[in-house]
Amino acid sequence: MNRHIPSVALAIALATAAAQARAEEGMWMPEQIPALAPRLRELGFQGDPKAFADLTGQPMGAVVSLGGCSASFVSADGLIATNHHCVQAALQYASTPDRDLVRDGYVARSREEELWTGPGSRVYVTVSVDDVTDAVTRKLDPRSSDLDRGRLLERRVKEETAKCERRNPRCTVVSFFEGARWYAIGEVEIEDVRLVYAPHHQVGNFGGEVDNWMWPRHSGDFSLYRAYVGADGKSRPHAKENVPYRPRHWLPVQASGISPGELALVAGYPGRTYRMRTVAEAEDLLAWSYPRAVRRYGDMLALLAGLTKGNRAAAIKVNTKVRGLANSMKKQQGVLELAARTGLVEKLRGEERALQAWIDADARRKEEWGDVVPKLAELQARKARTRERDALLAEVYPEATRVSSLMGAARVLWRLAEERPKLDVDRVPEFQQRNWTRLRDGLERLDRSLDLGADRALLRYTLLDVAALPADQRIAAVDAATGLAPGLSREEMGTRVDAFLERLYASARLQEKATRMGLLEADPKALLATGDGFIALAKALAPMERQLDEEKRAWEGARSRWAPGYARARLARAGGVLAPDANSTLRVTFGRVEGVSPRDGIVFEPQTRLAGVLEKHRPGDPDFDVPAPVREAIAAQHARGSGPYVDPRLGDVPVDALASVDITGGNSGSAVLNGKGELVGLMFDGTWDAITSDFAYDAARNRSILVDVRYLLWSLAEVSRAPRLLEELGVKPGAAGN
Amino acid sequence: MNRHIPSVALAIALATAAAQARAEEGMWMPEQIPALAPRLRELGFQGDPKAFADLTGQPMGAVVSLGGCSASFVSADGLIATNHHCVQAALQYASTPDRDLVRDGYVARSREEELWTGPGSRVYVTVSVDDVTDAVTRKLDPRSSDLDRGRLLERRVKEETAKCERRNPRCTVVSFFEGARWYAIGEVEIEDVRLVYAPHHQVGNFGGEVDNWMWPRHSGDFSLYRAYVGADGKSRPHAKENVPYRPRHWLPVQASGISPGELALVAGYPGRTYRMRTVAEAEDLLAWSYPRAVRRYGDMLALLAGLTKGNRAAAIKVNTKVRGLANSMKKQQGVLELAARTGLVEKLRGEERALQAWIDADARRKEEWGDVVPKLAELQARKARTRERDALLAEVYPEATRVSSLMGAARVLWRLAEERPKLDVDRVPEFQQRNWTRLRDGLERLDRSLDLGADRALLRYTLLDVAALPADQRIAAVDAATGLAPGLSREEMGTRVDAFLERLYASARLQEKATRMGLLEADPKALLATGDGFIALAKALAPMERQLDEEKRAWEGARSRWAPGYARARLARAGGVLAPDANSTLRVTFGRVEGVSPRDGIVFEPQTRLAGVLEKHRPGDPDFDVPAPVREAIAAQHARGSGPYVDPRLGDVPVDALASVDITGGNSGSAVLNGKGELVGLMFDGTWDAITSDFAYDAARNRSILVDVRYLLWSLAEVSRAPRLLEELGVKPGAAGN
Repeated sequence: MNRHIPSVALAIALATAAAQARAEEGMWMPEQIPALAPRLRELGFQGDPKAFADLTGQPMGAVVSLGGCSASFVSADGLIATNHHCVQAALQYASTPDRDLVRDGYVARSREEELWTGPGSRVYVTVSVDDVTDAVTRKLDPRSSDLDRGRLLERRVKEETAKCERRNPRCTVVSFFEGARWYAIGEVEIEDVRLVYAPHHQVGNFGGEVDNWMWPRHSGDFSLYRAYVGADGKSRPHAKENVPYRPRHWLPVQASGISPGELALVAGYPGRTYRMRTVAEAEDLLAWSYPRAVRRYGDMLALLAGLTKGNRAAAIKVNTKVRGLANSMKKQQGVLELAARTGLVEKLRGEERALQAWIDADARRKEEWGDVVPKLAELQARKARTRERDALLAEVYPEATRVSSLMGAARVLWRLAEERPKLDVDRVPEFQQRNWTRLRDGLERLDRSLDLGADRALLRYTLLDVAALPADQRIAAVDAATGLAPGLSREEMGTRVDAFLERLYASARLQEKATRMGLLEADPKALLATGDGFIALAKALAPMERQLDEEKRAWEGARSRWAPGYARARLARAGGVLAPDANSTLRVTFGRVEGVSPRDGIVFEPQTRLAGVLEKHRPGDPDFDVPAPVREAIAAQHARGSGPYVDPRLGDVPVDALASVDITGGNSGSAVLNGKGELVGLMFDGTWDAITSDFAYDAARNRSILVDVRYLLWSLAEVSRAPRLLEELGVKPGAAGN
Repeated sequence: MNRHIPSVALAIALATAAAQARAEEGMWMPEQIPALAPRLRELGFQGDPKAFADLTGQPMGAVVSLGGCSASFVSADGLIATNHHCVQAALQYASTPDRDLVRDGYVARSREEELWTGPGSRVYVTVSVDDVTDAVTRKLDPRSSDLDRGRLLERRVKEETAKCERRNPRCTVVSFFEGARWYAIGEVEIEDVRLVYAPHHQVGNFGGEVDNWMWPRHSGDFSLYRAYVGADGKSRPHAKENVPYRPRHWLPVQASGISPGELALVAGYPGRTYRMRTVAEAEDLLAWSYPRAVRRYGDMLALLAGLTKGNRAAAIKVNTKVRGLANSMKKQQGVLELAARTGLVEKLRGEERALQAWIDADARRKEEWGDVVPKLAELQARKARTRERDALLAEVYPEATRVSSLMGAARVLWRLAEERPKLDVDRVPEFQQRNWTRLRDGLERLDRSLDLGADRALLRYTLLDVAALPADQRIAAVDAATGLAPGLSREEMGTRVDAFLERLYASARLQEKATRMGLLEADPKALLATGDGFIALAKALAPMERQLDEEKRAWEGARSRWAPGYARARLARAGGVLAPDANSTLRVTFGRVEGVSPRDGIVFEPQTRLAGVLEKHRPGDPDFDVPAPVREAIAAQHARGSGPYVDPRLGDVPVDALASVDITGGNSGSAVLNGKGELVGLMFDGTWDAITSDFAYDAARNRSILVDVRYLLWSLAEVSRAPRLLEELGVKPGAAGN
């Protein structure tokens, strides 16, 4: 039947019919939205769905990324709305032991009081999306080696990135549908981002880890930034004289919020989902990666809790790390629990068997895709053989800095020194010139989050895991530096690691910002001359990282033979109707505000209210102690009874709401639009009962959590008394609706 | 205004009007029910409410007590329905390491297979309730001492008991309204009780301590007993040739169960509530007794868990104790948490202030009751001075056997030997002749629950608390026996206690049933001649117990001056409409099957269903592992879709339901009747969100949990395949409704 491989164009054409049945699944590419118009209209959309395909028009032109979080312009002067949990690093950067913004929040009373959020804090505006599939995947010789294939793909991605950046300030070339499609995404990058408003953490993060992922929820997970640029309107690094950015589009705020049954349309940057992965790949995550992360993050959180107890300065420094670890751990734990309870892997296996049977039932399909599932399983097995060592190398010698920030800094300096002499096109992508400012900002920003005790404790913890690797999977450079070897007793491992760390931290120089920044353009010789042990270890580890990079290239080359076919088979079998997996690019998803029965005998109502905040108040409880000014404002509100932000149905100001929209991590801070394209809320969380949605979407149970814009407006009006901001949001203080 | 003290008769007369407003509060005396007729009819009652006042008629004649639990006759042949958690001691008694009924449950396939539940297992049928207020409280000379007053009250209660027992097999004289009223309750006592049916513990106790007090709930908390008597129809001790008791009344089973909105009428034996206590008395529980119990029970459970790990025989022996401790601990913990969250004590204090103001506003009231609140507070403070020591004495030298059963046995033997020579009327009530069989049964039954390791560990734990008592509150006999003294180090205390226990348990003889039973009529000399250290300690502790008994008599004498007035003031202020606090006597309460919103944003549906049992299934989880036969029966039921026990609204067999009825501990196993007086379910639990209802009733939040009779019938039909029992319950296997 489906003898031709359907293109994404076909997928879009076919989407309409099936959309009726299960449109709420899908983080759609904006260009796919016009084809979903009938379903959108049915849900109450009143505008022109074609508008979504225009990334530089209304509303998509207002939707931005903060890198890991989503956000949107909400005023002509570049005011940006996002989640409180998305501004943690900014609060941390702007905090000092005397001024604890992480705890107390912040309200800028004037433009002058708006606080720079630090180097590396960015706003990204997507301005173009171009299909470069042909340029990336044309004429790949099936006879070339896996490694050659992988190298060629990497080179083409670099070339297409460069080509796109001739037209745009910044581009990313990204794979969709497991490499079946490639797109070049053009972005504008704003470098001067300032904090305008954040609520008290016991509003913004009310309920803490206890309520995270849970309903009923009462978090005021909102904050405001402002983008600043040079006087010419162009992006500039932070400077006092910069002026507010004037976006061409911003979202009008609808002060009457959103109610049950209404359309909730969400535009943002979902990070990563795994719905179009084979069972072998999903199992690698569910049976190895997630349990490992849960163990490690739990241990790391316990270490950090012990180290920062009674030390508020250290606690502020590690706060962003702690919240990130805790959130990841809870999510992965939740995924494992729900997957076990619902037999997720068995279900995926059943679907994969059905897919294979469908492929095998047709000679052409069998010829085209008959091998893809077993081949991808083989590839996964190949990767699994060294996954523990590979993961540990990336943790000791990190791209990110979740373990030791000093080790991360040493690595960046060393690898930069190695790569700098090369032609840009030959450099490892991470160290190409286009990323130098970013790398620099990361190094500069570092001391706001660096606590030497925490840094050392986490590195020690990870080195003890390295010490326990089997004999055939050693990390030689670590062994050489520490005197570790296979077969030592736990005690002896500890002794050697401690002795090594003693020397290492005694020799450390990179914790001094001036030293660190002064070495940014140093060559290897100059780096080694510092005598910093982290640099020596960075040098020793680099060859192994390069070797693993080559292995990864070869592996990607091999995967590119099969994975696109797997995605095409899935698409063909679904009649072409599938949104691609999330990949941190701009997407649109939609549904309704509605409650759900998560389990037999219990119903989640679609909204919560201020009364529920008081209900949860527990004096002295770090997660549930409602600040006195908030309690007083709620009491006054309840005494008044009415007011501009009161929901007539609830008889109270609404706080959070449930919506049947399809989101994942990265969507945090996403604008929630109503049927008129007005901002009515901000998405901030998924729910525990559908937490496996990254792997498989459950149309009956999936709900996501948003904060109603009325809670933001009420907080600005009644708690923070910020008429300046209310006016800028187009709301007359004291009157709702427009 | 209310110049006369209202009698209970007045209270009943006045009940009707106010009942409209909040009738769902109240564990009513059966004689109060006719006055509540209008509200009952409004809720859908179709019979004659006057019938409830006739304890020997239908339906009250069918409602029985098991001593601590409630139950009811459900067939002409003495079949009794109660909760699974009420038959734990029976399951334990009938279990052996080879036949684990505690775990597996039991189905008697014939009358012959019905298993004796052991000595001391009883069914009590209330047959008369007589007002003896005047006889107990007449002409108490206000000038006599507290002790004389207390002694006189105790003697009169004994006299009235004896008088009542001339007409009835057994009587209890009980105080209502804090001593403002006294009633003599006549009972028939059935001594041969047999186990007919109990489900697997992962049906009966499904959800374990995790789900205890919680909704949504999926426990099949039902079991069946049968009462046996002599061939003449009279109560007899257990004998093979006994025959099923033929009660004059039993409850017809309505196989169509109960649905939301329907009247739920509950008849049973609620244990104890504290709604008519002063703040000082409530605070003693909330600020001292409950926190202390939570700590002790938690420690004891940890000890028992450690001792029985991997030892199923020991686990069976301590199972009843463990479930009792765990249940009490969770309840008291829940009460403390909810009380803190809702500011319960502050609320009670506010009400008490309002009561005082109301009393003081009228000269007559002031004269009558002006002092009662402060006087009762003084009395409470007096008691508090030695409460820690007094509690510990009762734990070391227990009436109940929660700590050391051997110590309990030694105490019974010793005190019996002391009391036996006296005239019966002069004996301490516990050791009067009417209780000898009971005491004997307790001693006989003991070895089914005695595990020497657990016994010793719990005694050790308690003696270490005794060791830590302050110098002015020592228990001299324990100090003398153990060499303990104030001011020892923790280590030294441990050493001395252990040395003492070593000697004590080495000398123990009472663990042998024959020895124990052989000493039942021994005199002190013969007892001491055994050389059993427990008996020596029992002798040494007896004088202190007698002394504390005297202090208690004096205290009760003092309290009897003020507490009745306090209750009268409360009654008068409430316009006479108050049910008395629960006191383990027969009561009726009613409400509707209905859900509730326990917190903002969440709703509890009124019913759960079989699908929810499967949803909770977690293989290997001790609380949530649904037995395979049950899973298979549910799968088959779902495959069939229809069937006699399927609720059309739910599309499934119902499991548990919520009802707005007012119950407390002791109501477990109570019959739930519909508007026609048919049995539609069994009450088994309160809810976490109204767990402070023993202190104050929250009309909006209070709900209790029942198991729908359809789940019992379905289990009998589809899991246990017990047509014999279904037929006896008047249900044609395969057909519901009548």
